[in-house]
Amino acid sequence: MTKTLQGIAASDGIAVAPAYLLVEPDLSFSKTSVSDVDSEVARFKKVVSESTAELEKVRDKAKETLGEDEAQVFDAHLLFLSDPEFTGAIENEIKNQKINAEAALDETAQKFIAIFEGMTDNAYMQERAADVRDVSKRIMAHLLGVSLPDPASIDHEVVVIAHDLTPSDTAQLNKKYVKGFITDIGGRTAHSAIMARSLEIPAVVGTNTITKDVKNGQMVIADGLDGVAIIDPTEDQVKQYTEKGEAFAKQKAEWKKLKDEPSVTANGKHYTIAANIGTPDDMKGVLENGAEAVGLYRTEFLYMDSSDFPSEEDQFEAYKKVIEGMNGKQVIIRTCDIGGDKHLDYWDLPEEMNPFLGVRAIRLSMQYKDIFRTQLRALLRASAYGSLGIMFPMIGTLDELREAKKILKEEKDKLVADGVKVGDNLQVGMMIEVPAAAVLADQFAKEVDFFSIGTNDLIQYTMAADRGNDNVSYLYQPYNPSVLRLIKHTIDGAHENGIWCGMCGEAAGDNIMFPILLSMGLDEYSMSATSILRIRSLMKQINTEDIKELANKACYVSETYEENEKLVEETMKKLGINY
Amino acid sequence: MTKTLQGIAASDGIAVAPAYLLVEPDLSFSKTSVSDVDSEVARFKKVVSESTAELEKVRDKAKETLGEDEAQVFDAHLLFLSDPEFTGAIENEIKNQKINAEAALDETAQKFIAIFEGMTDNAYMQERAADVRDVSKRIMAHLLGVSLPDPASIDHEVVVIAHDLTPSDTAQLNKKYVKGFITDIGGRTAHSAIMARSLEIPAVVGTNTITKDVKNGQMVIADGLDGVAIIDPTEDQVKQYTEKGEAFAKQKAEWKKLKDEPSVTANGKHYTIAANIGTPDDMKGVLENGAEAVGLYRTEFLYMDSSDFPSEEDQFEAYKKVIEGMNGKQVIIRTCDIGGDKHLDYWDLPEEMNPFLGVRAIRLSMQYKDIFRTQLRALLRASAYGSLGIMFPMIGTLDELREAKKILKEEKDKLVADGVKVGDNLQVGMMIEVPAAAVLADQFAKEVDFFSIGTNDLIQYTMAADRGNDNVSYLYQPYNPSVLRLIKHTIDGAHENGIWCGMCGEAAGDNIMFPILLSMGLDEYSMSATSILRIRSLMKQINTEDIKELANKACYVSETYEENEKLVEETMKKLGINY
Repeated sequence: MTKTLQGIAASDGIAVAPAYLLVEPDLSFSKTSVSDVDSEVARFKKVVSESTAELEKVRDKAKETLGEDEAQVFDAHLLFLSDPEFTGAIENEIKNQKINAEAALDETAQKFIAIFEGMTDNAYMQERAADVRDVSKRIMAHLLGVSLPDPASIDHEVVVIAHDLTPSDTAQLNKKYVKGFITDIGGRTAHSAIMARSLEIPAVVGTNTITKDVKNGQMVIADGLDGVAIIDPTEDQVKQYTEKGEAFAKQKAEWKKLKDEPSVTANGKHYTIAANIGTPDDMKGVLENGAEAVGLYRTEFLYMDSSDFPSEEDQFEAYKKVIEGMNGKQVIIRTCDIGGDKHLDYWDLPEEMNPFLGVRAIRLSMQYKDIFRTQLRALLRASAYGSLGIMFPMIGTLDELREAKKILKEEKDKLVADGVKVGDNLQVGMMIEVPAAAVLADQFAKEVDFFSIGTNDLIQYTMAADRGNDNVSYLYQPYNPSVLRLIKHTIDGAHENGIWCGMCGEAAGDNIMFPILLSMGLDEYSMSATSILRIRSLMKQINTEDIKELANKACYVSETYEENEKLVEETMKKLGINY
Repeated sequence: MTKTLQGIAASDGIAVAPAYLLVEPDLSFSKTSVSDVDSEVARFKKVVSESTAELEKVRDKAKETLGEDEAQVFDAHLLFLSDPEFTGAIENEIKNQKINAEAALDETAQKFIAIFEGMTDNAYMQERAADVRDVSKRIMAHLLGVSLPDPASIDHEVVVIAHDLTPSDTAQLNKKYVKGFITDIGGRTAHSAIMARSLEIPAVVGTNTITKDVKNGQMVIADGLDGVAIIDPTEDQVKQYTEKGEAFAKQKAEWKKLKDEPSVTANGKHYTIAANIGTPDDMKGVLENGAEAVGLYRTEFLYMDSSDFPSEEDQFEAYKKVIEGMNGKQVIIRTCDIGGDKHLDYWDLPEEMNPFLGVRAIRLSMQYKDIFRTQLRALLRASAYGSLGIMFPMIGTLDELREAKKILKEEKDKLVADGVKVGDNLQVGMMIEVPAAAVLADQFAKEVDFFSIGTNDLIQYTMAADRGNDNVSYLYQPYNPSVLRLIKHTIDGAHENGIWCGMCGEAAGDNIMFPILLSMGLDEYSMSATSILRIRSLMKQINTEDIKELANKACYVSETYEENEKLVEETMKKLGINY
């Protein structure tokens, strides 16, 4: 029976393939007494040889599909299966205790694991505990007659179905055959969603029940464009979605061709399309997608992935890596935005009733000036290696901006006095995300080199609706005329004062928002790396002369976000733009 | 040694008088065995007669100062002291158990309290539990040799010092002699602050340590104009503050003369000065201070002072009382603003990470439409008794406003169809407190009869700073140019569309804010009743022609709130305005 689940579109594209359930089977067992110990030992031996044969296949597949390195772990498993110290101990357990093989396996495995884990002075032997766990699990599955998911052995196209995907799950996936993901839980920022976008395979997350609804091998469709999962689709649906997938793939291939092209409109105007990143590791995607700049480097991950405040040296290395990686193209690095919904074990901050309206970002930096100065020094030193922009988050008043700039200047002067090289073309900018800053953009523009609009926060404060609260998510309206007016006022304020204005919130890569922003003359669009080529393609099709009136209509004629959605869709349709 | 504490100015005026510590003494005791039970019973009897003598005095004083009704509670206490069932039970306890009088008193009192509280079908007897508690406390204090504060017996001028003042504390205060309050905790909106303003006595709250720093009878100064508390002042200080107090009292007497005068500027322009109220009981202050309207009736107190949703009938009576009380002058009633920092035992709402950005006010009404409809029906019925304006809080989008208006119309149509009378001149308006609404004021103005700007929330959202969070209180800036621009935009949007615009946030009664708002042409100023005459006096001195440029300077020339503070002060000084 066909069943359709609505989830969240987490990664673009369409996959039509049999389901592969990456779900841990139930390996629970009862401990029983056995009278015929010889036949129980024989049962165990048979299962060991079955497991060995299976593991050899898995290993060979893994070598073929994942490479020698990834396959080595299976050699380690095979070693245990052929080790009489391990299997013999289990056989003895069956004989001496007159218990079933499952109980004997479990008890022996626990002993081995305890011994290995006890070897605290030998990391290599400690790691063997994981091998014992894995190999025991495989034997247990055979004893119980259930099959274990073997993601590495996937040898045909599948859509992986999971409750959620952890990093270790995905490490063993044979990415060649994985055509898509569908999960029970998660949102657009879950690991599985990020992984899917980085692998560029479609993903639907948050379906709630997919692991319960689908059986292994059942045909499924993952529509990552509209967030729909279909189990056991009709022939018509298979045809329709295959075509939709092909059309999307074709479009994507077209986009790929734009990788090394500049971001220009149909009438030849250039606007910068940049990437948002969280760590230096994200640079691969940035370069592969032809970003013209890094528009937002979120440095809080340096703090979050650490057990203590990152040192000046560690920060310097990370910043330098990104700046050098961009090879002269600009990198905008935002100073730490901790607080709000982000907390650290080692940074003891008071509980707040409304953390989004509390001490976060620059407010926290101003309370912990030493930590702020350390980051600024690392940034200033890294600025010598390319083109850096330092950006302050959550600025709400001119007093805050002036204080932050003063501290930056003090650190710069100290470094220069010490003979440390600092970049010549360092820019200093600020996020526009507090409504007060957007309202006073004309005043702020006189004191910075650039703005970057953070739509996620600007929207939540303008609408007074927590962006993480499902009960008010209907008020999180990027296209609301109030939000658009504040954005337009910010861009106008920047331009009247001769500075550039970018956007690093989610909205910059949004198909509805982009034409409006272009109509406003936004200078820089910073987004997830995987959105860059789609937006570059869209930009290429738009003649800015044709959408001159769009911004004013969206700000002053439209009264609701729905009207703006319709306005853009109709405008694009009228212009014959592939949308 | 003179000690000065900086607190929060919570009620205007200066008090210089000895401290009266309204602090619960330590009544803890140890249970001990007594061998000489006869002398222990004698000790108890002696204490009972001391307590009786004291209570008789307290009762007589209370009759004299508070009146017969308030003194009755002490008669009830005396009854217990003379009741052999009560005192005899304690004496028996001492004798039988051979325990000290404190333990016998405590155990007997607990039994009596349990019995009275158990009489769930007799409210009168249930209330006697409180009497047992109070009278036992008095006996215990005598047994332990500590003195109990007796606020009703105050017979000389004092400044009451307390950790915080609860409603029951203040009920027994002899207001004739209480010249001021100083408390450890609380802000301008704490019960003690509201009580002080309604009694028109100076109050300083939030000093943190006053109860620890001051001794009973020590001279103190409460400067409710500047939020300063001085313990053991010098002679010079006493003189200086006494003069300051006299000057203020003189000014206040001048203001009183304006009670029945209209609110007009020096050049004869009329603007409405209205009062904010929480319950119908506040009407006394409203009328005494010559309010020209009720600009905000906060109906949430109807819900908060109740153990279940208030019925349509209860609401109707409350609204009618206020509307009739104003005798034809307009009353603006705001629909329920629960959620955020206000919660009810009987309304089970989900925990939110950021309640100020969550489901509150109109958002909650939209989720609980039945409760909303009940309130609207009560309002519509009450509208027949005078001039009513219904106001929706926390409107952020036109969709929300239209939905609220639709529901109001449905209820109105139903009532009219049922032959129920509804007022002819009913107005429908909205709060402007979500930044999105201020930004789109021109659009909203086309769909309502009036605006009322809620500065408390508008400021917290515009600055993205929780108004209850001390760590970001420096960002709560009413005079910030961003806030002023949004206010000006709101007023302009209203006037361009032919509707009136008021303000019901704290800022309307603020000396710095008022001239700026007047320069913007705000139509209605709604404030605490006790601020009305001060603002009327200020208005009377200002010629609007002289401050024509003030609004634009405050919005577009000034860059910080300090500059605006200075701007207004200097402008007023230049104009020779008594400020």
